[in-house]
Amino acid sequence: MATQGQVITCKAAVAYEPNKPLVIEDVQVAPPQAGEVRIKILFTALCHTDAYTWSGKDPEGLFPCILGHEAAGIVESVGEGVTEVQPGDHVIPCYQAECRECKFCKSGKTNLCGKVRTATGAGVMMNDRKSRFSVNGKPIYHFMGTSTFSQYTVVHDVSVAKVDPQAPLDKVCLLGCGVPTGLGAVWNTAKVEPGATVAIFGLGTVGLAVAEGAKSAGASRIIGVDIDSKKYDIAKNFGVTEFVNPKDYDKPIQQVLVDLTDGGVDYSFECIGNVSVMRAALECCHKGWGTSVIIGVAASGQEISTRPFQLVTGRVWKGTAFGGFKSRSQVPWLVDKYMKKEIKIDEYITHNLALGDINKAFDLMHEGGCLRCVLKLHE
Amino acid sequence: MATQGQVITCKAAVAYEPNKPLVIEDVQVAPPQAGEVRIKILFTALCHTDAYTWSGKDPEGLFPCILGHEAAGIVESVGEGVTEVQPGDHVIPCYQAECRECKFCKSGKTNLCGKVRTATGAGVMMNDRKSRFSVNGKPIYHFMGTSTFSQYTVVHDVSVAKVDPQAPLDKVCLLGCGVPTGLGAVWNTAKVEPGATVAIFGLGTVGLAVAEGAKSAGASRIIGVDIDSKKYDIAKNFGVTEFVNPKDYDKPIQQVLVDLTDGGVDYSFECIGNVSVMRAALECCHKGWGTSVIIGVAASGQEISTRPFQLVTGRVWKGTAFGGFKSRSQVPWLVDKYMKKEIKIDEYITHNLALGDINKAFDLMHEGGCLRCVLKLHE
Ligand SMILES: NC(=O)c1ccc[n+]([C@@H]2O[C@H](COP(=O)([O-])OP(=O)(O)OC[C@H]3O[C@@H](n4cnc5c(N)ncnc54)[C@H](O)[C@@H]3O)[C@@H](O)[C@H]2O)c1
Ligand SMILES: NC(=O)c1ccc[n+]([C@@H]2O[C@H](COP(=O)([O-])OP(=O)(O)OC[C@H]3O[C@@H](n4cnc5c(N)ncnc54)[C@H](O)[C@@H]3O)[C@@H](O)[C@H]2O)c1
Ligand SMILES: [Zn+2]
Ligand SMILES: [Zn+2]
Ligand SMILES: [Zn+2]
Ligand SMILES: [Zn+2]
Repeated sequence: MATQGQVITCKAAVAYEPNKPLVIEDVQVAPPQAGEVRIKILFTALCHTDAYTWSGKDPEGLFPCILGHEAAGIVESVGEGVTEVQPGDHVIPCYQAECRECKFCKSGKTNLCGKVRTATGAGVMMNDRKSRFSVNGKPIYHFMGTSTFSQYTVVHDVSVAKVDPQAPLDKVCLLGCGVPTGLGAVWNTAKVEPGATVAIFGLGTVGLAVAEGAKSAGASRIIGVDIDSKKYDIAKNFGVTEFVNPKDYDKPIQQVLVDLTDGGVDYSFECIGNVSVMRAALECCHKGWGTSVIIGVAASGQEISTRPFQLVTGRVWKGTAFGGFKSRSQVPWLVDKYMKKEIKIDEYITHNLALGDINKAFDLMHEGGCLRCVLKLHE
Repeated sequence: MATQGQVITCKAAVAYEPNKPLVIEDVQVAPPQAGEVRIKILFTALCHTDAYTWSGKDPEGLFPCILGHEAAGIVESVGEGVTEVQPGDHVIPCYQAECRECKFCKSGKTNLCGKVRTATGAGVMMNDRKSRFSVNGKPIYHFMGTSTFSQYTVVHDVSVAKVDPQAPLDKVCLLGCGVPTGLGAVWNTAKVEPGATVAIFGLGTVGLAVAEGAKSAGASRIIGVDIDSKKYDIAKNFGVTEFVNPKDYDKPIQQVLVDLTDGGVDYSFECIGNVSVMRAALECCHKGWGTSVIIGVAASGQEISTRPFQLVTGRVWKGTAFGGFKSRSQVPWLVDKYMKKEIKIDEYITHNLALGDINKAFDLMHEGGCLRCVLKLHE
């Protein structure tokens, strides 16, 4: 490896300021230090969390930074002490780390990991609390511990999932965020059982993955709720059996669903990030057992609310991050499921562009017809 | 039975108007109709739900009515088709019915029962949607399907638990509400496991029963939170290992608990009915897995709220009614546990009075020193 131990200069999309177009820059990427992995990113998709931080609405957003967290690539080099991956391995960077040693990893109760969180939250690496990215000597912050809008990135070794080298990286990059989040919300967080009725609020990538997960779990009715009726056609392919557009009703959407299901659904999922929809999703659940899972990320400062009686009479309110999947352990398993055609990925990819078109890709996200846009990072 | 099939005239405490002293009246109690049971109530305790409805704050409260729902007695006579109890049986009336036939009872997921709910909510009996109580021909509403502040009451057969005739009714009457609610919140709703850390907000009867349940479940730390420091002495006897008075701190109580427990408790229970404490109880839970159970009944119209991030990062918000116990099936089991000295009851009873002193008993409830006051209904 000619590049090993060297600074690599490559192209990256830098977010200098909130809401200003990203700039394709020549970025210097320092070599990985102890416990770090430098990855040649081949493909990255865009997710709403990128757009959220870029918009400036995320109070913890740091600028300038390199966004991106749904990607796949090949290990270029590894720092001291890294044993689980080596140069040439095909990998998916994981914004949810998995160290297998911390209180969280050992609890057996959660996929959250505490190991590198203070560093990734501060846009730096654990080792020296500095960034590995710079432009003309000026540091550029990391983002979510992944920063995949760059031809090369450096991540902590606890944030790298090694995957089947046969898997097409332009597809499995989606297993870095949205698709596992939806599937896992059903399988790990809600644990939907055969025959259950399910309501899904928001039929973007996450909501469609919830539908797919619910279908495979044997749900009997999968009711998709979206204000964009065009979503119904595609949603059918993912398992949605009925479609409800809140705009077609005068009564609150929770009442519509309760009436439609003889008392409410067994499980509901909020896949939008809207706090009033989160309330509706809880309140459309069946008394006695209905469980609602929040997946959408609301704007900072917004709060959910309901009457406590909703919970006292047996509804359960939960949430999920990365669908409850343990990243390093389970992302490779999801890749294998895709290879065996047990889960969809291709169907979520509506657009393919090059890194240079990233601003256009952000624009596309706000259009109804776009689910996931995958960017190619190298010619 | 000389009284069977006859109207019985007996003493009862009638709530004619919200917040006005109850009146001890001669009340006419009609014979039980099909599917109904007339019970001679021997002992009744007072619970905060009685006080809540009596105060007029309950928008569904109906007047005039006969309150009371934590009691024990002996079956006087049964209506047509009643097979599971007969005159002479010792019983506990249950405000949570259990019909074993409805969608709820058959779900295996909840202790709520839908069978007689529309009638009990309207203060009448299912059969003819009329009351069995009257004073000089004017009907008096039932309350919670139990109305135990009367020497005789009529309840639906699905609301009667037959218990060991050896059990002292002046004690096991408490198994009609508060004590099972606290125990069951731990055992059935939260499912606290050995070694867990627990926070209990409010150390009245319900909170102390939570402590007892948590101790028997093997919790390692049981932190009692109450604004009345006098509660600590008694709470120790129920298993509370540490005491926190929110008044001793400037910072929010959720922060106090997070600091005290290296990140938060595994389980918390709100046993007060205060929506801001409900929020604190959720937010003092550990990221990744902490579960908070709402037991307290908030004033009508009040709402709980929090940032959705609290749930997305793994906390779970639940509630419980009657601790998740199936009333007819499990109240007899709780009575047996008491007889085997596996659960406490006597220790919750701080006062004993006669029915005629009921207004004094309501006053006592608002004094710190009173847990449960048991009224004797017959000389
Ligand atoms: N918890 C996690 O780990 C996690 C991971 C990934 C994404 N997310 C979040 O999940 C959410 C969904 O992501 P996505 O990529 O599927 O988004 P998306 O924008 O593609 O999909 C959202 C859908 O919701 C619909 N919608 C908007 N407002 C609505 C309303 N009031 N009622 C009904 N439908 C409405 C839109 O028409 C759209 O179809 C985002 O908030 C994202 O940040 C969370
Ligand atoms: N969900 C159910 O099925 C169910 C059943 C029974 C009772 N309840 C409800 O449970 C609640 C508790 O009942 P109880 O009989 O134990 O009541 P209680 O009044 O005896 O106990 C409440 C305790 O909370 C303490 N307290 C009040 N405000 C506080 C605050 N801000 N912070 C900390 N402590 C505070 C008081 O000092 C008292 O010790 C009531 O709301 C009652 O209606 C619910
Ligand atoms: Zn994402
Ligand atoms: Zn970890
Ligand atoms: Zn009660
Ligand atoms: Zn029932």
